[in-house]
Amino acid sequence: MKLRDAALMLRTALDEAERMGVQVCVTIVDATAWPVTFARMDGVPLGVIDVSHKKARTAALFHMDSAEFAKVAHPNGEAYALEATNGGLTSFGGGVVIRNAKGAILGGIGVSGASTEDDISIARLAATTVRD
Amino acid sequence: MKLRDAALMLRTALDEAERMGVQVCVTIVDATAWPVTFARMDGVPLGVIDVSHKKARTAALFHMDSAEFAKVAHPNGEAYALEATNGGLTSFGGGVVIRNAKGAILGGIGVSGASTEDDISIARLAATTVRD
Amino acid sequence: MKLRDAALMLRTALDEAERMGVQVCVTIVDATAWPVTFARMDGVPLGVIDVSHKKARTAALFHMDSAEFAKVAHPNGEAYALEATNGGLTSFGGGVVIRNAKGAILGGIGVSGASTEDDISIARLAATTVRD
Amino acid sequence: MKLRDAALMLRTALDEAERMGVQVCVTIVDATAWPVTFARMDGVPLGVIDVSHKKARTAALFHMDSAEFAKVAHPNGEAYALEATNGGLTSFGGGVVIRNAKGAILGGIGVSGASTEDDISIARLAATTVRD
Repeated sequence: MKLRDAALMLRTALDEAERMGVQVCVTIVDATAWPVTFARMDGVPLGVIDVSHKKARTAALFHMDSAEFAKVAHPNGEAYALEATNGGLTSFGGGVVIRNAKGAILGGIGVSGASTEDDISIARLAATTVRD
Repeated sequence: MKLRDAALMLRTALDEAERMGVQVCVTIVDATAWPVTFARMDGVPLGVIDVSHKKARTAALFHMDSAEFAKVAHPNGEAYALEATNGGLTSFGGGVVIRNAKGAILGGIGVSGASTEDDISIARLAATTVRD
Repeated sequence: MKLRDAALMLRTALDEAERMGVQVCVTIVDATAWPVTFARMDGVPLGVIDVSHKKARTAALFHMDSAEFAKVAHPNGEAYALEATNGGLTSFGGGVVIRNAKGAILGGIGVSGASTEDDISIARLAATTVRD
Repeated sequence: MKLRDAALMLRTALDEAERMGVQVCVTIVDATAWPVTFARMDGVPLGVIDVSHKKARTAALFHMDSAEFAKVAHPNGEAYALEATNGGLTSFGGGVVIRNAKGAILGGIGVSGASTEDDISIARLAATTVRD
């Protein structure tokens, strides 16, 4: 994951949040879950920072969007308590896998602070701006 | 738990995974839950490393396979949230208690990365290679 | 600390690093040490990410540049081992207090990845771009 | 870092330790500091496990052998307290950078449990077995 691409995704996410009138944190990590870039919009509750980190980590570490992760980690899913691994993960939407045009995993983006539906929508829009 | 025995179990697990065409992480801990040996096969999602650790720890710390642990730690079980103790445990299959021929507990093995069913099958096969 | 101002400081630091031909991580925290924005340039060793975080935290938490902090926290200083508090701080240059025109503390910026001298120079330049 | 290569390095380190009549832990991580393989020889004090982890992490995260790291992180070095970052690093020898034939960083190996001199010697020998 190049900073150039991550910065573009971050910009896209912040612009979309502003357009929608919501405030979010955005975290982008590479394919090995190390941070590349991050921003917190004015007015977001401070607890949301870590949530955006964990959403991005969840997507990168398990190669699945956090909303999918929620299904397997649910008490009635096949991997209950999976969210307690890796320093704590996130079992709800807003973490999205970033792939290049060929489908290879480049990293994860975590958006948090708005409704889960809006978080997902912003993350998906941003994730699709990757160029290579 | 001797490293000689743990290394043999590790080798057995990796060979079996390769034979089945799956990629897994394998962690082996002694009866006091301290790590003895570990390996990550190429291509396993990085989040799986910690899952294999926690499966092995769960088996060693509570003297039960993690699939059994899942029943008592389930929200409807008798010890809900038990998985949040000890730095985080794992409430699904793939952690297996290692016993010697006389039934004494030698440690735990955690296998993760394939389906839960396959993880369990690999862990059980490896755990039975212990000689003394 | 507004994201608008933090984003401008971040941009300034990255541009200056590029001009100098060095690769750095830049972390900006608010006056309560909570992260506002962060970026890692391509090619920076991964251990540097946390160093930039800790430099920024050190400046914000103790109201002093990390190079000043190093003097009091040194084994021969008056507060030896102070760097072991607050989850770990940093006892060398590159963390700079961000103040507004009236001298009030707005936060801290941590720059890491180049020589300590260059890290400090980049951090100071960026910190002075704040407008209010 | 392929498991095949890491397993060969691990085997080399354990054989050399046995030949020298010392007991060690060996940790091998990839270039992003995620674990690939690990083994603890019989009789090694349990505290050494984490030391071998931290030596390997230090080498991978900062692209330098832990003995070199010790110089910059020393109270009189230019980056005192650097070892307090990244969850704790190690400021003494036994962590060695693993490079391929072209000099690219593949990961880090940490050897601990014998004298620092012997730990370094074992780690260096093992690190040079990488094939590509």
